[in-house]
Amino acid sequence: MKKLLDDPSQAVTDSLRGFGLAHADQVSVHHDPNYVVRAGGTPPGQVAVVSGGGSGHEPLHAGFVGAGMLDAAVPGEVFTSPTPDQVLAAVQAADGGAGVLLIVKNYTGDVLNFETAAELAEAEDIETTSVLVNDDVAVEDSLYTAGRRGVAGTLFVEKVAGAAAARGDSLAQVTALAERAASAVRSMGVALTACTVPHVGKPSFDLGEDEVEIGIGIHGEPGRHRVTASGASDITRRLVDSVLDDIELAEGARVLLFVNGMGGTPASELYVVYGIARQMLVDHGAQVERSLVGSYVTSLEMQGVSVTVAVLDDELIELWDAPVRTPALTW
Amino acid sequence: MKKLLDDPSQAVTDSLRGFGLAHADQVSVHHDPNYVVRAGGTPPGQVAVVSGGGSGHEPLHAGFVGAGMLDAAVPGEVFTSPTPDQVLAAVQAADGGAGVLLIVKNYTGDVLNFETAAELAEAEDIETTSVLVNDDVAVEDSLYTAGRRGVAGTLFVEKVAGAAAARGDSLAQVTALAERAASAVRSMGVALTACTVPHVGKPSFDLGEDEVEIGIGIHGEPGRHRVTASGASDITRRLVDSVLDDIELAEGARVLLFVNGMGGTPASELYVVYGIARQMLVDHGAQVERSLVGSYVTSLEMQGVSVTVAVLDDELIELWDAPVRTPALTW
Repeated sequence: MKKLLDDPSQAVTDSLRGFGLAHADQVSVHHDPNYVVRAGGTPPGQVAVVSGGGSGHEPLHAGFVGAGMLDAAVPGEVFTSPTPDQVLAAVQAADGGAGVLLIVKNYTGDVLNFETAAELAEAEDIETTSVLVNDDVAVEDSLYTAGRRGVAGTLFVEKVAGAAAARGDSLAQVTALAERAASAVRSMGVALTACTVPHVGKPSFDLGEDEVEIGIGIHGEPGRHRVTASGASDITRRLVDSVLDDIELAEGARVLLFVNGMGGTPASELYVVYGIARQMLVDHGAQVERSLVGSYVTSLEMQGVSVTVAVLDDELIELWDAPVRTPALTW
Repeated sequence: MKKLLDDPSQAVTDSLRGFGLAHADQVSVHHDPNYVVRAGGTPPGQVAVVSGGGSGHEPLHAGFVGAGMLDAAVPGEVFTSPTPDQVLAAVQAADGGAGVLLIVKNYTGDVLNFETAAELAEAEDIETTSVLVNDDVAVEDSLYTAGRRGVAGTLFVEKVAGAAAARGDSLAQVTALAERAASAVRSMGVALTACTVPHVGKPSFDLGEDEVEIGIGIHGEPGRHRVTASGASDITRRLVDSVLDDIELAEGARVLLFVNGMGGTPASELYVVYGIARQMLVDHGAQVERSLVGSYVTSLEMQGVSVTVAVLDDELIELWDAPVRTPALTW
């Protein structure tokens, strides 16, 4: 295993330390337990939006802490849910007096630990709500999941919720919009290579020289099937078709198309996939109103891509377009 | 070779097509020959800043086209200089009537082809200047270079020049500032893995299971030596020491620290390197005033990192901080 790490057991903490120093104008990193909050904290009276999960998916979630998106992020160990105490500490630090929305990717450990943290927070009179993200259409149940997995669509939910909180919406309103965003978004991914968890030291799975895994999870969990690699058009078609099979797209529907790299994929290839996926959506009668291309919800150094489609309406577009200023997403 | 491409010989054009569609609000992509200009063009009367070079280093250069940075970018084939005709077409499209600065990475083909293009442009009464970037301290001459290579420091030169042009500086002033930025910046990189050029179909070089190449070029050209991989601290120390051996850093010097991923490196590892490099600079008496961490000047899917240090003064800080709005860099 070749990685730019020292002690693999300290990888998350070492990385967070560098992250905090590099972005001290936007975030504040706390250790024991690890969590990240906005520099200066949540503006008083504003709903706080908090998310988190296992590390290894950077820049998700800590890279989205800042004005207009998350007020705190809780990074667990690599591919491991954060503990309830860790989530509670982040909730306490982020609470601005108007309640806290927890955005939780649908993995069994995350769901349980965020629920426990929410109960502990309620006992301290911090009002919380939570929204589950389960956008991955690939498989119903999976290695770490009852029901669908939460993957790249999480970014969309976090952006919408953060923008709603920033404009002064109440906790109920922010929660309802996050639910609407979560209902509107679907994703499907493919892996060209596996990734290696630092403290494990060997690849999470084996793929043949010419094989790709269609429907891969962001922890390398099995997808739908393996096929022989066959070029960008064939692979993209499989992803987009699966998403379209699952989502109701009226003629003329306005959509966000988000092409996400898994960590080790060159930007140039993401744009090739984007071009193909966009044409498929147009041929399907959709209007691609907004786009995002980049490696935002990753699996360490895995090579691969996911395609996310979100159905937009005027309010979701307004919230997507609202200013955001975080280490990994700014406009 | 597994890549998200269709026809490898069309990789650059296919990728540019997707890029143009995804960022139509910021850039306009032209084909035959390929070049990228700002949507809406260079503001009349403003100096145009144009750069380019072989593809495979995305988001460099096309990702930096937009307000406050580049007015045009000229992407050659993968790891291949753009042709003089291509550069000339971009210069003609970008010229806003106040002259054009060409920012050229020091590779023999790039230098020759940009020179020829500049002569052709002068014949059409477009005034041009050019600035050479040669920030790589690893080796004096290299596979494609007489003298030092231009690598990640190019981003710094492009940002400074673009900001100077945006505030209305003359061609002579923009050129002088770009020269100052180029003189102030040094870089050194390391590869953990090789990359595969699409139309070649096999890795550019072989590295042993535990080997890393110290001083790698951004085309996989040989560096200084190969060593056994030994953790982030040892590797980072080798890079930063080489940069510090080459640059005059007065006690209290203000610097930009830019940790750049080579394309296949997880963000989490870049931040580990950043934390170590920053501490080394602080121990050396420098003040890290500005920071950038991300995969901006890449070598396809290569795993590795480069460390860039630029010595700042008040004016360079002002130009670095000036607003920028491009597909890959926004603040």
